[in-house]
Amino acid sequence: MATEFSDIEKFLRPLADTQGASLLLDDGAHLNFSNSERVSVTTDMLVEDLHFLKNGDPLDIAYKVLGCNLSDVAAMGAYPKYYTLSIARPDWANSEWLARFSDGLSRLQKQYGLFLIGGDTVGGDRLVINVTMFATAPLAQQNPLRSEARIEDEVWMTGTAGDGALGLDVLQGRYSQLDADTASYLKMRYWRPQPRLISDFLGRFRCACADVSDGVLADIRQICKASQVGAHICLEDVPLSTAFKATQGDSLSARLYAASGGDDYELLLCGKASDMEELALLCQEKALSLTKIGTITSEAGCIAVTYKGKSVSVQKYGWEHL
Amino acid sequence: MATEFSDIEKFLRPLADTQGASLLLDDGAHLNFSNSERVSVTTDMLVEDLHFLKNGDPLDIAYKVLGCNLSDVAAMGAYPKYYTLSIARPDWANSEWLARFSDGLSRLQKQYGLFLIGGDTVGGDRLVINVTMFATAPLAQQNPLRSEARIEDEVWMTGTAGDGALGLDVLQGRYSQLDADTASYLKMRYWRPQPRLISDFLGRFRCACADVSDGVLADIRQICKASQVGAHICLEDVPLSTAFKATQGDSLSARLYAASGGDDYELLLCGKASDMEELALLCQEKALSLTKIGTITSEAGCIAVTYKGKSVSVQKYGWEHL
Repeated sequence: MATEFSDIEKFLRPLADTQGASLLLDDGAHLNFSNSERVSVTTDMLVEDLHFLKNGDPLDIAYKVLGCNLSDVAAMGAYPKYYTLSIARPDWANSEWLARFSDGLSRLQKQYGLFLIGGDTVGGDRLVINVTMFATAPLAQQNPLRSEARIEDEVWMTGTAGDGALGLDVLQGRYSQLDADTASYLKMRYWRPQPRLISDFLGRFRCACADVSDGVLADIRQICKASQVGAHICLEDVPLSTAFKATQGDSLSARLYAASGGDDYELLLCGKASDMEELALLCQEKALSLTKIGTITSEAGCIAVTYKGKSVSVQKYGWEHL
Repeated sequence: MATEFSDIEKFLRPLADTQGASLLLDDGAHLNFSNSERVSVTTDMLVEDLHFLKNGDPLDIAYKVLGCNLSDVAAMGAYPKYYTLSIARPDWANSEWLARFSDGLSRLQKQYGLFLIGGDTVGGDRLVINVTMFATAPLAQQNPLRSEARIEDEVWMTGTAGDGALGLDVLQGRYSQLDADTASYLKMRYWRPQPRLISDFLGRFRCACADVSDGVLADIRQICKASQVGAHICLEDVPLSTAFKATQGDSLSARLYAASGGDDYELLLCGKASDMEELALLCQEKALSLTKIGTITSEAGCIAVTYKGKSVSVQKYGWEHL
């Protein structure tokens, strides 16, 4: 349709800046990489009402889509650089929608020094958005792989757990009695992942890292699988936000909810105790909390969960998918 | 769902080979590139019943999805190397479907030396597939950009025009009287793009290049727009397959249909007459025909179309999108 073409020209084309790529083409881009850096790639597909609420503010949808990928980049200890964007766009995602969505992309591009280097815009009766993101890191830096967890490592996490899942609950109409500030904080935790880009720090230590997209317990299990180790998680040490506690309390069930809820986009880190303590001090400078929540054990694949010293039986570790 | 995870492990994981990437991660991959090569990236999103028939053989859907991207790589004069794959997969695309789809991917990986380096598999009620493909080419090779067409260049194309669009018509039940061989040829032209990977040859000449995804007239218009020139296309010179002529005849209207139909995935090339003639000889060695169909003119943006010397008014140049 005629409007389609002008919409793309008007809203998305300005985001594609040749400063980023060596050359932008209509069907692709040529990129510049240096021999002294490793190149990392990650991709995420988000489907309406499965990964984000379709009636959300398009600005927030942009934050969610890029935020998920930025969080993957953070977990790889890299620095975001380029991305491609594909959108299957139903009629209801009209010019006004695209203008606001592009505004979100533009804000994040500026914030993170990102460049859009190509994409594809097609029709469809469901909104589906795919981002492939390219990141780089100096080869000299440590590479925080999932497979790097070792027995007796400590397990730490950034920020707080459970806010993303609770934010979705609030958006879906539960907890309607919440005060405005609490509700707003939790909703934003769902909509706007804050990628924990601490690659400068991660590059100094040997550690295993994953971002919490599926839930603390589900994602630590991924690390354990890749590293062929087990883990012991102390639920009472899992950090909770004030807003979370005000809404859910601080019981065992609240803590299980927090540790198995997705959409947190915090980092899970496993490393030597002294390294993790040093990392926590470095993160303090960025006003980012880092909290010890467990240890790595020798029982491959076994995630032992305790609450105040007592063993807890876990039914749901988080979202289960690849 | 539990089956989801095992399906992915069973069918897609084996396609991801560490030979390709320096390291495969759960959320991404680290890649190796050399300083002496340029890296090109292209992305395409395909939606069921918009870009491919959802009831098609999953093997063919794999050929279509990777073929579109391989054709973009061919038009960039590069060599395909890695790809990421995202799928929104409805329930009907079950284990059997995924096994056959993966078989198609595997065959093409072997044929083109490609490696799957990551992806995302999600739910959804519509089948949506996104591929981002990475290609490289020696920096020393010429770069066939769309913006490189010059006045008095000749316009040439590989293969034949119109078969892809006609194949779709046949698949949708028109032309039911066709003999089996003709019908089969046309259907395969729709389902299995043959990427014209002649990057070794393209790298020797200055030329402008685009692949015919939207239609010969639509895609030459893209080249003209990027190069700020015009073109004169002689419809009687547009190459047609025997199957096309047997079905559609060889009238002006048949030729307009051929030149404005999408899904051909042939290459359009603009370059110096002597270079194009040399290129045609090189392509002969690969049993690939290259045919002159027009010239580049000075009237920016103007696509003049003639048939046996007479001016033709064109209503539809091809699929209109970005």
